[in-house]
Amino acid sequence: MRWKCVCAYDGGAFQGWQSQSNALTVQDEIEGALASLLKADIRIHGSGRTDAGVHALGQVFHFDAAWRHGPDRLVAALSTRLPPSLLIKSAVRVADDFHARFDTVGKRYHYRITLGPAEPHEVAYCLAVPGPLDVDRMRTAAGFLVGRHDFAPFSASNGDLIEDTCKELRLARISRRGRRLRITLEAGGFLYHMARSMVGGLLKVGLGRLEPTVFEQVLSSGRRIPLIETAPAKGLFLERVFYPGR
Amino acid sequence: MRWKCVCAYDGGAFQGWQSQSNALTVQDEIEGALASLLKADIRIHGSGRTDAGVHALGQVFHFDAAWRHGPDRLVAALSTRLPPSLLIKSAVRVADDFHARFDTVGKRYHYRITLGPAEPHEVAYCLAVPGPLDVDRMRTAAGFLVGRHDFAPFSASNGDLIEDTCKELRLARISRRGRRLRITLEAGGFLYHMARSMVGGLLKVGLGRLEPTVFEQVLSSGRRIPLIETAPAKGLFLERVFYPGR
Repeated sequence: MRWKCVCAYDGGAFQGWQSQSNALTVQDEIEGALASLLKADIRIHGSGRTDAGVHALGQVFHFDAAWRHGPDRLVAALSTRLPPSLLIKSAVRVADDFHARFDTVGKRYHYRITLGPAEPHEVAYCLAVPGPLDVDRMRTAAGFLVGRHDFAPFSASNGDLIEDTCKELRLARISRRGRRLRITLEAGGFLYHMARSMVGGLLKVGLGRLEPTVFEQVLSSGRRIPLIETAPAKGLFLERVFYPGR
Repeated sequence: MRWKCVCAYDGGAFQGWQSQSNALTVQDEIEGALASLLKADIRIHGSGRTDAGVHALGQVFHFDAAWRHGPDRLVAALSTRLPPSLLIKSAVRVADDFHARFDTVGKRYHYRITLGPAEPHEVAYCLAVPGPLDVDRMRTAAGFLVGRHDFAPFSASNGDLIEDTCKELRLARISRRGRRLRITLEAGGFLYHMARSMVGGLLKVGLGRLEPTVFEQVLSSGRRIPLIETAPAKGLFLERVFYPGR
């Protein structure tokens, strides 16, 4: 039987999602808990990788296992085998042809920014920007990103994947509460470093070092410019993964 | 010249505020930074101690030092000598008779609670309560606490201080946003473990294990009851310290 789980993690505690021989990753940790629980070698399949340092509130993975005690006890049994930095939020039985990666129809990320120094209890979960940010300028630039575009200029090669770089960005929202800024990005799919490149570019716009219209030019030219840097991982949260019918 | 500083810290990174010979404390860390900056042995005086694990957003301390480069450069110079878990938020020159502890006219704490498991990035900064909490019952109980009372039943002996256990609680507010609960307590002064005992009692009321009216009885009898436990330190934040005229 196939299980779909939603999990959350503190990205700072792991060397990213994907299993590695010489570092602790989220996948390794969960597979270790499953092995301890089920006395079997079980491979999990995530909706996609997250980089080292990127946090998740709603990462999704699936696996096959003969577990007869229902989803609640599965969540509880895994929880006792995982550190506080990694939380299994839900488990649900799904059809045997469900695939956490191939069935994805969208993802939502958000990026947390603090204007001025971050409070110590938040420093690992946001980017602290010293200068003021012009949020209106950032919103104008974000407007150019929304829609279906070739986002190659807002991505980095991840070396081993050749994929369609045309994606649909459905949402690019910038909200502000006092000294805290949140950039929410939702797309049918994200290229490698796409969310962090968009945020890196938007920060440059907010700081006045890049004109909002440059986003339009970059998208039509298809070429990345050096001023669009990749924002640090620690401010980024994978908020939700979407599947058909949910 | 005398300096008053406001600082914030992640309580999980320190063994409390007060200097200890065999453990890292906030006071030790700041005095170390001052020694490195000023090449002198400088003693700082906090508004009061915080227990190991208690966080601060606005702890206040004072010290005497001949620093001629202004408050902004003092903050910046200290920041480069402190870890991210400890932030100096402001410095201001004060009268030579200002005392961070003796001049205090009030403090505000808040306590963070999550209903259900805490997100991994918040687990060190809140108490996760599994069951539902009846917030209305908690508010009724909190109402009995507000005002001037002998709060000895809501405190613990700290061994070396004999002080007036009559304090004025000015505010006991319980706010809720989704799965997150915050209990804000403001008083002219707090006894040892007073905030954590109040929260421990309020949680028992919210879980239905204690009647709200018991708070009234406990305050009039002057005797602590075992059901009032001290809530864990990690959910508690010292939010602000008040001085006359501010």
